[in-house]
Amino acid sequence: MQNRVFQLLVDNNTGVLSRISGLFSRRGYNIESITAGVTADSRFTRITIVASGDEEVLDQIEKQVAKLIDVRDIRELKPDKSVYRELCLIKVKSTPEKRQGIIAVADIFRAKIIDVNVDSLIVELTGNQSKIEAFISLLKDYEILEIARTGIAGLGRGTEDVICLE
Amino acid sequence: MQNRVFQLLVDNNTGVLSRISGLFSRRGYNIESITAGVTADSRFTRITIVASGDEEVLDQIEKQVAKLIDVRDIRELKPDKSVYRELCLIKVKSTPEKRQGIIAVADIFRAKIIDVNVDSLIVELTGNQSKIEAFISLLKDYEILEIARTGIAGLGRGTEDVICLE
Repeated sequence: MQNRVFQLLVDNNTGVLSRISGLFSRRGYNIESITAGVTADSRFTRITIVASGDEEVLDQIEKQVAKLIDVRDIRELKPDKSVYRELCLIKVKSTPEKRQGIIAVADIFRAKIIDVNVDSLIVELTGNQSKIEAFISLLKDYEILEIARTGIAGLGRGTEDVICLE
Repeated sequence: MQNRVFQLLVDNNTGVLSRISGLFSRRGYNIESITAGVTADSRFTRITIVASGDEEVLDQIEKQVAKLIDVRDIRELKPDKSVYRELCLIKVKSTPEKRQGIIAVADIFRAKIIDVNVDSLIVELTGNQSKIEAFISLLKDYEILEIARTGIAGLGRGTEDVICLE
Protein backbone atom coordinates (compact mmCIF):
# COMPACT_ATOMS: atom_id res chain seq x y z
CA MET A 1 0.00 0.00 0.00
CA GLN A 2 1.29 3.39 -0.95
CA ASN A 3 0.06 6.88 -1.54
CA ARG A 4 0.35 8.34 -5.00
CA VAL A 5 -0.32 11.83 -6.29
CA PHE A 6 -1.47 12.03 -9.90
CA GLN A 7 -1.64 15.20 -11.90
CA LEU A 8 -4.00 15.30 -14.87
CA LEU A 9 -4.66 17.79 -17.57
CA VAL A 10 -8.09 17.36 -19.13
CA ASP A 11 -10.41 19.10 -21.54
CA ASN A 12 -12.92 21.13 -19.60
CA ASN A 13 -15.89 19.04 -20.78
CA THR A 14 -18.96 17.65 -19.10
CA GLY A 15 -18.49 14.14 -17.78
CA VAL A 16 -14.73 13.90 -17.69
CA LEU A 17 -14.64 13.94 -13.88
CA SER A 18 -17.31 11.27 -13.73
CA ARG A 19 -15.38 8.99 -16.10
CA ILE A 20 -12.14 9.41 -14.16
CA SER A 21 -13.65 8.81 -10.74
CA GLY A 22 -15.65 5.89 -12.19
CA LEU A 23 -12.42 4.19 -13.25
CA PHE A 24 -11.12 4.32 -9.69
CA SER A 25 -14.36 3.15 -8.11
CA ARG A 26 -14.87 0.22 -10.50
CA ARG A 27 -11.55 -1.08 -9.20
CA GLY A 28 -12.81 -0.59 -5.67
CA TYR A 29 -10.24 2.15 -5.18
CA ASN A 30 -11.09 5.17 -3.16
CA ILE A 31 -9.80 8.58 -4.13
CA GLU A 32 -8.39 10.08 -0.94
CA SER A 33 -8.49 13.60 -2.19
CA ILE A 34 -9.29 15.34 -5.43
CA THR A 35 -8.95 18.93 -6.51
CA ALA A 36 -9.94 20.32 -9.87
CA GLY A 37 -9.62 23.85 -11.12
CA VAL A 38 -9.34 25.66 -14.41
CA THR A 39 -5.89 26.51 -15.73
CA ALA A 40 -4.60 29.71 -17.34
CA ASP A 41 -6.34 28.45 -20.48
CA SER A 42 -10.01 28.02 -19.60
CA ARG A 43 -10.42 25.16 -22.09
CA PHE A 44 -8.45 22.92 -19.76
CA THR A 45 -8.81 21.75 -16.19
CA ARG A 46 -6.00 20.49 -14.02
CA ILE A 47 -6.95 17.71 -11.62
CA THR A 48 -4.85 16.44 -8.74
CA ILE A 49 -5.81 13.04 -7.33
CA VAL A 50 -4.37 11.30 -4.29
CA ALA A 51 -5.03 7.57 -4.22
CA SER A 52 -3.58 4.81 -2.14
CA GLY A 53 -3.36 1.14 -2.94
CA ASP A 54 -1.43 -1.66 -4.50
CA GLU A 55 1.39 -0.43 -6.75
CA GLU A 56 0.47 -2.62 -9.71
CA VAL A 57 -3.20 -1.65 -9.71
CA LEU A 58 -2.31 2.04 -9.48
CA ASP A 59 -0.05 1.57 -12.51
CA GLN A 60 -2.96 0.01 -14.40
CA ILE A 61 -5.38 2.75 -13.39
CA GLU A 62 -2.88 5.37 -14.56
CA LYS A 63 -2.67 3.72 -17.98
CA GLN A 64 -6.45 3.40 -18.29
CA VAL A 65 -7.06 7.01 -17.27
CA ALA A 66 -4.53 8.11 -19.93
CA LYS A 67 -6.73 6.46 -22.57
CA LEU A 68 -9.96 8.21 -21.53
CA ILE A 69 -11.59 10.75 -23.79
CA ASP A 70 -10.73 14.35 -22.82
CA VAL A 71 -7.67 13.30 -20.80
CA ARG A 72 -4.66 15.08 -22.26
CA ASP A 73 -2.05 13.96 -19.80
CA ILE A 74 -1.63 12.06 -16.56
CA ARG A 75 1.57 11.79 -14.61
CA GLU A 76 2.72 10.98 -11.13
CA LEU A 77 3.97 13.83 -8.97
CA LYS A 78 6.88 12.19 -7.14
CA PRO A 79 7.40 13.54 -3.62
CA ASP A 80 11.09 14.34 -4.10
CA LYS A 81 10.50 16.33 -7.29
CA SER A 82 7.29 18.17 -6.42
CA VAL A 83 5.66 20.61 -4.06
CA TYR A 84 2.29 19.74 -2.56
CA ARG A 85 0.03 22.13 -0.74
CA GLU A 86 -3.38 21.86 0.81
CA LEU A 87 -5.75 24.49 2.20
CA CYS A 88 -7.79 23.82 5.29
CA LEU A 89 -10.58 25.82 6.95
CA ILE A 90 -11.40 24.91 10.54
CA LYS A 91 -14.28 26.24 12.58
CA VAL A 92 -13.56 26.10 16.30
CA LYS A 93 -15.97 26.79 19.13
CA SER A 94 -14.62 29.59 21.28
CA THR A 95 -15.69 31.60 24.23
CA PRO A 96 -14.01 34.99 24.68
CA GLU A 97 -11.79 33.30 27.31
CA LYS A 98 -10.64 30.56 24.98
CA ARG A 99 -10.07 32.82 21.99
CA GLN A 100 -6.54 33.84 22.99
CA GLY A 101 -5.45 30.22 23.28
CA ILE A 102 -6.71 29.39 19.81
CA ILE A 103 -5.05 32.47 18.32
CA ALA A 104 -1.76 31.46 19.97
CA VAL A 105 -1.89 28.01 18.34
CA ALA A 106 -2.79 29.60 15.01
CA ASP A 107 0.18 32.00 15.26
CA ILE A 108 2.64 29.14 15.75
CA PHE A 109 1.46 27.57 12.50
CA ARG A 110 1.14 30.92 10.71
CA ALA A 111 -2.53 30.22 10.26
CA LYS A 112 -4.94 33.10 9.71
CA ILE A 113 -8.12 33.87 11.60
CA ILE A 114 -10.57 34.71 8.82
CA ASP A 115 -13.86 34.90 10.70
CA VAL A 116 -14.77 35.64 14.32
CA ASN A 117 -18.17 35.21 15.92
CA VAL A 118 -19.40 35.41 19.49
CA ASP A 119 -19.01 31.68 19.91
CA SER A 120 -16.75 30.52 17.07
CA LEU A 121 -13.65 31.26 14.98
CA ILE A 122 -12.70 30.15 11.47
CA VAL A 123 -8.99 29.50 10.95
CA GLU A 124 -7.30 29.14 7.56
CA LEU A 125 -4.13 27.07 7.21
CA THR A 126 -2.01 26.20 4.18
CA GLY A 127 0.67 23.54 4.15
CA ASN A 128 1.53 19.97 3.42
CA GLN A 129 -0.63 17.23 4.87
CA SER A 130 1.49 16.54 7.93
CA LYS A 131 1.47 20.22 8.96
CA ILE A 132 -2.30 20.35 8.63
CA GLU A 133 -2.75 17.18 10.62
CA ALA A 134 -0.46 18.43 13.39
CA PHE A 135 -2.47 21.65 13.54
CA ILE A 136 -5.80 19.83 13.70
CA SER A 137 -4.59 17.56 16.48
CA LEU A 138 -3.48 20.59 18.52
CA LEU A 139 -6.89 22.20 18.07
CA LYS A 140 -8.56 19.09 19.44
CA ASP A 141 -8.08 20.58 22.91
CA TYR A 142 -10.81 22.93 21.76
CA GLU A 143 -14.08 21.92 20.16
CA ILE A 144 -13.74 21.61 16.38
CA LEU A 145 -17.13 22.24 14.77
CA GLU A 146 -16.34 21.82 11.08
CA ILE A 147 -13.36 21.19 8.83
CA ALA A 148 -13.19 21.80 5.09
CA ARG A 149 -9.99 20.64 3.37
CA THR A 150 -9.35 21.25 -0.30
CA GLY A 151 -7.17 18.22 -0.88
CA ILE A 152 -3.73 18.50 -2.41
CA ALA A 153 -2.69 20.67 -5.33
CA GLY A 154 0.82 20.07 -6.59
CA LEU A 155 3.38 21.05 -9.20
CA GLY A 156 6.65 19.50 -10.28
CA ARG A 157 9.74 21.47 -9.29
CA GLY A 158 11.81 23.16 -11.99
CA THR A 159 11.09 23.35 -15.69
CA GLU A 160 12.12 19.89 -16.88
CA ASP A 161 8.77 18.24 -16.70
CA VAL A 162 6.29 20.99 -17.41
CA ILE A 163 3.00 19.79 -18.86
CA CYS A 164 2.57 21.93 -21.91
CA LEU A 165 -0.19 21.79 -24.46
CA GLU A 166 1.74 23.08 -27.41
CA MET B 1 -27.01 31.59 -15.18
CA GLN B 2 -25.53 31.78 -11.75
CA ASN B 3 -22.73 30.31 -9.73
CA ARG B 4 -23.58 28.16 -6.76
CA VAL B 5 -21.38 26.64 -4.09
CA PHE B 6 -22.62 23.36 -2.63
CA GLN B 7 -21.23 21.76 0.46
CA LEU B 8 -21.71 18.02 0.87
CA LEU B 9 -20.98 15.60 3.64
CA VAL B 10 -20.65 12.03 2.39
CA ASP B 11 -19.61 8.62 3.64
CA ASN B 12 -16.02 7.99 2.67
CA ASN B 13 -16.93 5.10 0.33
CA THR B 14 -15.81 4.00 -3.07
CA GLY B 15 -17.91 5.37 -5.88
CA VAL B 16 -19.64 8.25 -4.13
CA LEU B 17 -17.67 10.85 -6.08
CA SER B 18 -18.45 9.10 -9.35
CA ARG B 19 -22.18 9.03 -8.59
CA ILE B 20 -22.24 12.71 -7.67
CA SER B 21 -20.26 13.90 -10.68
CA GLY B 22 -22.35 11.60 -12.90
CA LEU B 23 -25.52 13.35 -11.79
CA PHE B 24 -24.14 16.70 -12.91
CA SER B 25 -22.80 15.39 -16.22
CA ARG B 26 -26.01 13.55 -17.16
CA ARG B 27 -27.69 16.93 -17.02
CA GLY B 28 -24.97 18.34 -19.22
CA TYR B 29 -23.76 20.46 -16.32
CA ASN B 30 -20.12 21.04 -15.83
CA ILE B 31 -18.63 21.19 -12.35
CA GLU B 32 -16.47 24.31 -12.29
CA SER B 33 -14.46 23.24 -9.33
CA ILE B 34 -14.52 20.40 -6.86
CA THR B 35 -12.56 19.78 -3.71
CA ALA B 36 -12.85 16.73 -1.51
CA GLY B 37 -11.01 15.97 1.69
CA VAL B 38 -11.48 13.90 4.80
CA THR B 39 -13.01 15.53 7.85
CA ALA B 40 -12.02 15.28 11.51
CA ASP B 41 -13.84 11.93 11.44
CA SER B 42 -12.15 9.82 8.75
CA ARG B 43 -15.38 7.98 7.95
CA PHE B 44 -16.70 11.10 6.26
CA THR B 45 -15.56 13.29 3.39
CA ARG B 46 -16.57 16.88 2.85
CA ILE B 47 -16.97 17.90 -0.77
CA THR B 48 -17.31 21.44 -2.07
CA ILE B 49 -18.69 21.82 -5.57
CA VAL B 50 -19.01 24.99 -7.60
CA ALA B 51 -21.46 24.72 -10.49
CA SER B 52 -23.05 27.30 -12.70
CA GLY B 53 -26.26 27.11 -14.61
CA ASP B 54 -29.96 27.60 -14.64
CA GLU B 55 -31.42 28.15 -11.18
CA GLU B 56 -34.19 25.57 -11.54
CA VAL B 57 -31.91 22.83 -12.79
CA LEU B 58 -29.44 23.47 -9.98
CA ASP B 59 -32.34 23.14 -7.51
CA GLN B 60 -33.23 19.80 -9.06
CA ILE B 61 -29.65 18.54 -9.01
CA GLU B 62 -29.38 19.52 -5.35
CA LYS B 63 -32.47 17.44 -4.52
CA GLN B 64 -31.26 14.45 -6.51
CA VAL B 65 -27.81 14.52 -4.97
CA ALA B 66 -29.44 14.56 -1.52
CA LYS B 67 -31.09 11.24 -2.34
CA LEU B 68 -27.89 9.46 -3.40
CA ILE B 69 -26.46 6.62 -1.34
CA ASP B 70 -23.65 7.76 0.98
CA VAL B 71 -24.70 11.41 0.78
CA ARG B 72 -25.42 12.61 4.33
CA ASP B 73 -26.07 16.23 3.61
CA ILE B 74 -25.98 18.79 0.84
CA ARG B 75 -26.53 22.50 1.27
CA GLU B 76 -25.80 25.70 -0.51
CA LEU B 77 -23.11 27.94 0.90
CA LYS B 78 -24.59 31.39 0.35
CA PRO B 79 -21.99 34.08 -0.35
CA ASP B 80 -23.20 36.45 2.36
CA LYS B 81 -23.12 33.80 5.07
CA SER B 82 -19.97 31.92 4.17
CA VAL B 83 -16.23 32.17 3.73
CA TYR B 84 -14.68 30.71 0.58
CA ARG B 85 -10.99 30.14 0.03
CA GLU B 86 -8.94 28.66 -2.73
CA LEU B 87 -5.27 27.73 -2.96
CA CYS B 88 -3.29 28.32 -6.10
CA LEU B 89 0.23 27.25 -7.09
CA ILE B 90 1.77 29.09 -10.04
CA LYS B 91 5.03 28.26 -11.74
CA VAL B 92 6.56 31.27 -13.44
CA LYS B 93 9.56 31.34 -15.73
CA SER B 94 12.20 33.66 -14.29
CA THR B 95 15.68 34.76 -15.08
CA PRO B 96 17.72 36.15 -12.17
CA GLU B 97 16.89 39.63 -13.53
CA LYS B 98 13.16 39.05 -13.53
CA ARG B 99 13.04 37.36 -10.13
CA GLN B 100 12.81 40.62 -8.17
CA GLY B 101 9.83 41.80 -10.17
CA ILE B 102 7.95 38.57 -9.54
CA ILE B 103 8.75 38.66 -5.84
CA ALA B 104 7.47 42.25 -5.66
CA VAL B 105 4.11 41.23 -7.17
CA ALA B 106 3.95 38.26 -4.80
CA ASP B 107 4.61 40.52 -1.79
CA ILE B 108 1.70 42.81 -2.67
CA PHE B 109 -0.66 39.82 -2.61
CA ARG B 110 1.03 38.24 0.41
CA ALA B 111 1.81 35.24 -1.73
CA LYS B 112 4.68 32.95 -0.76
CA ILE B 113 7.58 31.84 -2.92
CA ILE B 114 7.81 28.12 -2.15
CA ASP B 115 10.32 26.92 -4.75
CA VAL B 116 13.12 28.63 -6.64
CA ASN B 117 15.08 27.20 -9.53
CA VAL B 118 17.60 28.67 -11.95
CA ASP B 119 14.87 29.41 -14.46
CA SER B 120 11.59 29.24 -12.54
CA LEU B 121 9.75 30.09 -9.34
CA ILE B 122 6.70 28.51 -7.70
CA VAL B 123 4.38 30.95 -5.93
CA GLU B 124 1.62 29.94 -3.50
CA LEU B 125 -1.43 32.15 -3.04
CA THR B 126 -4.55 31.75 -0.92
CA GLY B 127 -7.66 33.82 -1.28
CA ASN B 128 -11.06 34.14 -2.85
CA GLN B 129 -11.43 33.62 -6.56
CA SER B 130 -11.26 37.28 -7.55
CA LYS B 131 -7.99 37.80 -5.64
CA ILE B 132 -6.46 34.76 -7.34
CA GLU B 133 -7.60 35.90 -10.75
CA ALA B 134 -6.19 39.40 -10.21
CA PHE B 135 -2.87 37.86 -9.17
CA ILE B 136 -2.73 35.58 -12.21
CA SER B 137 -3.48 38.45 -14.57
CA LEU B 138 -0.64 40.52 -13.05
CA LEU B 139 1.76 37.60 -13.50
CA LYS B 140 0.89 37.40 -17.18
CA ASP B 141 3.58 40.03 -17.79
CA TYR B 142 5.90 37.12 -17.01
CA GLU B 143 5.68 33.66 -18.54
CA ILE B 144 3.35 31.40 -16.56
CA LEU B 145 4.41 27.78 -17.06
CA GLU B 146 1.85 25.92 -14.95
CA ILE B 147 -1.06 26.66 -12.64
CA ALA B 148 -2.60 24.25 -10.14
CA ARG B 149 -5.71 25.52 -8.34
CA THR B 150 -7.45 23.51 -5.65
CA GLY B 151 -10.92 24.89 -6.26
CA ILE B 152 -12.97 26.40 -3.45
CA ALA B 153 -13.31 25.13 0.08
CA GLY B 154 -15.90 26.91 2.18
CA LEU B 155 -17.59 27.03 5.56
CA GLY B 156 -20.67 28.80 6.78
CA ARG B 157 -20.03 31.66 9.19
CA GLY B 158 -21.04 31.31 12.81
CA THR B 159 -22.51 28.28 14.54
CA GLU B 160 -26.13 28.40 13.41
CA ASP B 161 -25.84 26.14 10.45
CA VAL B 162 -23.14 23.67 11.39
CA ILE B 163 -23.41 20.31 9.62
CA CYS B 164 -23.25 17.84 12.47
CA LEU B 165 -23.55 14.10 12.27
CA GLU B 166 -24.94 13.50 15.70
